[in-house]
Amino acid sequence: MNAPSSQPSQPDGRSQPSRLRLPSEQSGRPVVPSRGRLRPLGLNEVRISGGFWGHRQEVNASATLEHCLTWMNRLGWIGNFRSAARDDEPWPRAGREFSDSEIYKLSEAMAWEIGRTGNGRVRKWLAELTDIVGAAQKPDGYLNTAFDGPGQQPRYTDLEWGHELYCYGFLIQAAVAHTRVAGVAPAPDQGQHQGEDDSALLHIARRAADHICDVFGPDRKPGICGHAEIEMALVELARLTGEQRYLDQARLFVERHGQQTLADIEFGRAYYQDDVPVRHATVLRGHAVRALYLAAGAVDVAVETGDDELLEAVQVQWRATVARRTYLTGGMGSRHQDEAYGEDFFLPPDRAYSETCAGVASVMLNWRLLLATGEPRYADLTERTLYNVIATSPAADGKTFFYANTLHQRVRGTVPDPDRISPRALSSLRAPWFAVSCCPNNIARTLASLQAYLATADDDGIQIHQYADAEISTSLADGRDIALRVRTRYPDDGDVVVQVMGGRQRSDSAGRSASDTRPWTLSLRVPAWADDGAWLTMPDGQRRPVSPGMVDVNWAFSSGDEVRLELPVRPRWIEADPRVDAVRGTAAVERGPVVMCAESVDLPDDLDVDSVCVDPTVAPTEHDGQVTVAGSLVDTERDDDAWPYRESGSRPPAQGRPAEITLIPYHSWAERGPSTMRVWLPTI
Amino acid sequence: MNAPSSQPSQPDGRSQPSRLRLPSEQSGRPVVPSRGRLRPLGLNEVRISGGFWGHRQEVNASATLEHCLTWMNRLGWIGNFRSAARDDEPWPRAGREFSDSEIYKLSEAMAWEIGRTGNGRVRKWLAELTDIVGAAQKPDGYLNTAFDGPGQQPRYTDLEWGHELYCYGFLIQAAVAHTRVAGVAPAPDQGQHQGEDDSALLHIARRAADHICDVFGPDRKPGICGHAEIEMALVELARLTGEQRYLDQARLFVERHGQQTLADIEFGRAYYQDDVPVRHATVLRGHAVRALYLAAGAVDVAVETGDDELLEAVQVQWRATVARRTYLTGGMGSRHQDEAYGEDFFLPPDRAYSETCAGVASVMLNWRLLLATGEPRYADLTERTLYNVIATSPAADGKTFFYANTLHQRVRGTVPDPDRISPRALSSLRAPWFAVSCCPNNIARTLASLQAYLATADDDGIQIHQYADAEISTSLADGRDIALRVRTRYPDDGDVVVQVMGGRQRSDSAGRSASDTRPWTLSLRVPAWADDGAWLTMPDGQRRPVSPGMVDVNWAFSSGDEVRLELPVRPRWIEADPRVDAVRGTAAVERGPVVMCAESVDLPDDLDVDSVCVDPTVAPTEHDGQVTVAGSLVDTERDDDAWPYRESGSRPPAQGRPAEITLIPYHSWAERGPSTMRVWLPTI
Repeated sequence: MNAPSSQPSQPDGRSQPSRLRLPSEQSGRPVVPSRGRLRPLGLNEVRISGGFWGHRQEVNASATLEHCLTWMNRLGWIGNFRSAARDDEPWPRAGREFSDSEIYKLSEAMAWEIGRTGNGRVRKWLAELTDIVGAAQKPDGYLNTAFDGPGQQPRYTDLEWGHELYCYGFLIQAAVAHTRVAGVAPAPDQGQHQGEDDSALLHIARRAADHICDVFGPDRKPGICGHAEIEMALVELARLTGEQRYLDQARLFVERHGQQTLADIEFGRAYYQDDVPVRHATVLRGHAVRALYLAAGAVDVAVETGDDELLEAVQVQWRATVARRTYLTGGMGSRHQDEAYGEDFFLPPDRAYSETCAGVASVMLNWRLLLATGEPRYADLTERTLYNVIATSPAADGKTFFYANTLHQRVRGTVPDPDRISPRALSSLRAPWFAVSCCPNNIARTLASLQAYLATADDDGIQIHQYADAEISTSLADGRDIALRVRTRYPDDGDVVVQVMGGRQRSDSAGRSASDTRPWTLSLRVPAWADDGAWLTMPDGQRRPVSPGMVDVNWAFSSGDEVRLELPVRPRWIEADPRVDAVRGTAAVERGPVVMCAESVDLPDDLDVDSVCVDPTVAPTEHDGQVTVAGSLVDTERDDDAWPYRESGSRPPAQGRPAEITLIPYHSWAERGPSTMRVWLPTI
Repeated sequence: MNAPSSQPSQPDGRSQPSRLRLPSEQSGRPVVPSRGRLRPLGLNEVRISGGFWGHRQEVNASATLEHCLTWMNRLGWIGNFRSAARDDEPWPRAGREFSDSEIYKLSEAMAWEIGRTGNGRVRKWLAELTDIVGAAQKPDGYLNTAFDGPGQQPRYTDLEWGHELYCYGFLIQAAVAHTRVAGVAPAPDQGQHQGEDDSALLHIARRAADHICDVFGPDRKPGICGHAEIEMALVELARLTGEQRYLDQARLFVERHGQQTLADIEFGRAYYQDDVPVRHATVLRGHAVRALYLAAGAVDVAVETGDDELLEAVQVQWRATVARRTYLTGGMGSRHQDEAYGEDFFLPPDRAYSETCAGVASVMLNWRLLLATGEPRYADLTERTLYNVIATSPAADGKTFFYANTLHQRVRGTVPDPDRISPRALSSLRAPWFAVSCCPNNIARTLASLQAYLATADDDGIQIHQYADAEISTSLADGRDIALRVRTRYPDDGDVVVQVMGGRQRSDSAGRSASDTRPWTLSLRVPAWADDGAWLTMPDGQRRPVSPGMVDVNWAFSSGDEVRLELPVRPRWIEADPRVDAVRGTAAVERGPVVMCAESVDLPDDLDVDSVCVDPTVAPTEHDGQVTVAGSLVDTERDDDAWPYRESGSRPPAQGRPAEITLIPYHSWAERGPSTMRVWLPTI
């Protein structure tokens, strides 16, 4: 593997504090594989400058980070670390057994925000959190506020549900993020904190990682965590530090899944993917977030160890899962009971679980597979998930969230109490905080690092996978500096203009200036949904139809050259495979990558959405940004007290009145008070 | 209320052992309201002599009772009582916190079996169980092996989940059953146990009931049990003993529901019906078994206290629940997560929960409502539930059971280990026992007492609600003895012949002989499903069409007179209200009261049921008892790796080959090894 210079671990397996001299290819990136088809770009190389995602990044920075911090302070989840640090007598612990992980997820979000903007207030928060966390670490590296203290259960006695390794995973990811942004962060915008120790969080994480290797290494305790997560964290820490031991441990954890070391619980061992070894499984199954985190970790291990069989196994699982166990939104997880995938084609839209964190995890898995293979299908699913799961969870103000993302809300909910934690999946409205509150923090870290998922580079040039107003500046493999500006109103509008800028005007190592006009390749992803009417205009004005996949523009670009991609974001009717039983006899509308829905607040006479029938033989229309479909409205109060099953043909047809039904983006529903909503609309 | 003579409770609230002199209208009946439209008949008045249910009663007696006893001995659930009786030092308790209730449910089943056949082996078992249970009762009447012992949680500290009052409820029901059969049981068929104390179980139950009143009475601890059940048990104990205090306590428990004395858990207080007072609720909601037991208890309280508002409230809830929250099978409970009703019209056939015990509870509620009101709708739902839930749970051999009763099984399961307990709702095959094993014992007590649910009497005559080969002998209000023989092959055949027999030839109190031929009314239920082609033939041979509801034959019957009811059990297509989204675009087949299904083992080429499409414009056919429908078979392996959502109209239609699809009764599926199954079949 690609080992940057670092202090080696001590013979006792514990590493000393070290200030990494981070090579530039490590900086500012969430994932840094040492090999693979595509090379990620860093936060210093891509900046989202506005538009759909730019706005959400600003809301995340200005509202969500503090919102999460405030709640976790108020609820005592941060205070747990202070209590654990005292370690003298029993204390009342706040939150669930995995609440430590929330502080770490937020720390990672803060790290990316520092990398993105240099925000000094966030620097200060993170430094304080790091101090608080570090003080609770035991001399041997163990760190968890729910176990091992006075009156608490001993460490590692409940691998099924204890989440200790899961918590370490997020701690390590936060430390990796913080280390990777340290060198590239913009100067603080306020309240400079000179002299703060940027390596403190990494030091905590390495002590924890060394401890993990000591306890769970080869020939030691043969356990895994009931919730996968540690695997990808250890790989990234190995990538950051060059420490082979962490990679070995990650591989061990991946391979131990399916060895049935965990208990056979009521949900079965498939719940935590301990039923079948990763390399032998054929589909993702069990708890969706667990399954996706494990798959991401397996890809990381496969890439670093050159284990193509393992990589292929995950790809096979991905294909089966996407074909048979994924919602139109990209959401995953059909069951509330165990937050799990269902059987093939079990995808009920009502009471869909589609957990926000499963969306986050899916983006993480897809990014890794995209880097490894270059296949645009992974960016396709990322786009779908970003616009319809990630963008759906937070409210416009960034202070309330969906935990589950149903595709059909049957009853109008009640407004959650803004001062109380909410059950995780009961309400039809976004809630400020949950007893299990992984989703807000997971959204925060995803949005703060989102620019890293837009584009990649390879030996031939630059690939743009997701479209946003953005500035990209990086170096080609031959050393030439390239700067691009992406201008678009995507997804509202389908036009994407990529302009080649002057770039940084320094000369490369061979003395060539940036005005070097040798050809290179700009690749643009044509989404799978854009299979009818996508056009590309070359710098010379030549315009041609393009098909889904990566479109390569090999060109001797000059400063000012433009490539224009036109994507057909017109609304269109979608139907499901007949095997998706739960949506038989319905149709949905997509507009570009955005799934649309009907919401009761847009219907006349206070009707609920279950009164809507649509006519998919009439194309959806759009005027002034308003999408409507032809259909009818039926009074849903009919026959409310009758046995609902009758001899076929004996039921009089429902009398509906013709109506134009307004549709809105699914991600923007439930912003106007209690309502009912559905994505899949019964056809006339 | 109608108080039989009994020893009153002592001033300290504890009752002494008493041997009740049971009036005849109390004997042999599970439910004995003191008022109401219809009067139940006892086990000594109705006997099932063969046929569909007669066979199941025999299997229950010969296999299921011993099966349950063996498992509970093996697992230590019975042993818990022995350990608790020692009460000296902590002991390892077996089973879940509510396992005591299983011993009581089985005791009740044994009591009814004793009443039905006098089986001496069962007498012995019940006497032994009673000894074991009684020894564990504390001096103050408290009885629960999961609480209050050395090292155990103190009593009544977890009303939400502790199930202590729930357990008492089944104890009391068992004692009531045993007392009510004591006078009417046939002579033992073997191993007579003269001198056994038939009042021992009642003594235990009364001590427990007195204790409950002491602890939870007016101005005492204002709690309710997180699982309703105690309410109806206390009413029945009041009916049996004449003890007003028990009725008052039952009313108090019913009225306390909805006062929000239990914690607001993640599922919400609706889970245990503590969200809204019973008399203000409009629909059944939350955990289905809890909801139905509570509703049954509320009817009992309403009937005994003359609370017509409360009775009407439950009827309103029943109508809404049956119209919007009930499966075609009569099954209730749409969610696995909280074993709960879903929102209106949320009735997914795949992963339907439809717990067996909810079916049992529904039968109990319907019986109470039928007795109170005489409305045949309650017997209609009972019939549907009996043939499609109660009959579905146990295997033909009576030794394996469904806990949940899905209407669509997507994958072939694995055969449960016959020597291990199974998860309650994971398998596609019946399992011998479950960690939560309420269903086998609940089935046992229902089948053992089933004859009690067939017929009733009122001042005008006899009503037959359920059809089975049976003998009925009772007395009319004017004292005349009536004997009827019901002959039928129902539900295989729709002909039901009721023959008036000579009856018991003793004279009545007025000296009239049984040959008295003054008219009386024989009423027969024409099921709601029989709305096309039901015929009645009078004793004089006159034949006329009849409509759903109760058909009254007021006649001066002579011995040998016959009334014949012909019910059109031809298979027929059924469609659902369009608001049942999950079955849009499908149809089902019913044959008489029996819901049919397609099972993969009946399809060619090892196809799964998801390959089936049907054509409901062609009537189902039946030859030699084999029901088939016209349809086609589609290869389900098509496009297994493709994104399953496409622009409407872009998918080539699936190529199916025409086929005659065999259907079988839903209650008999999964008897031929792992298979897939569905009730609702996609239409072409």
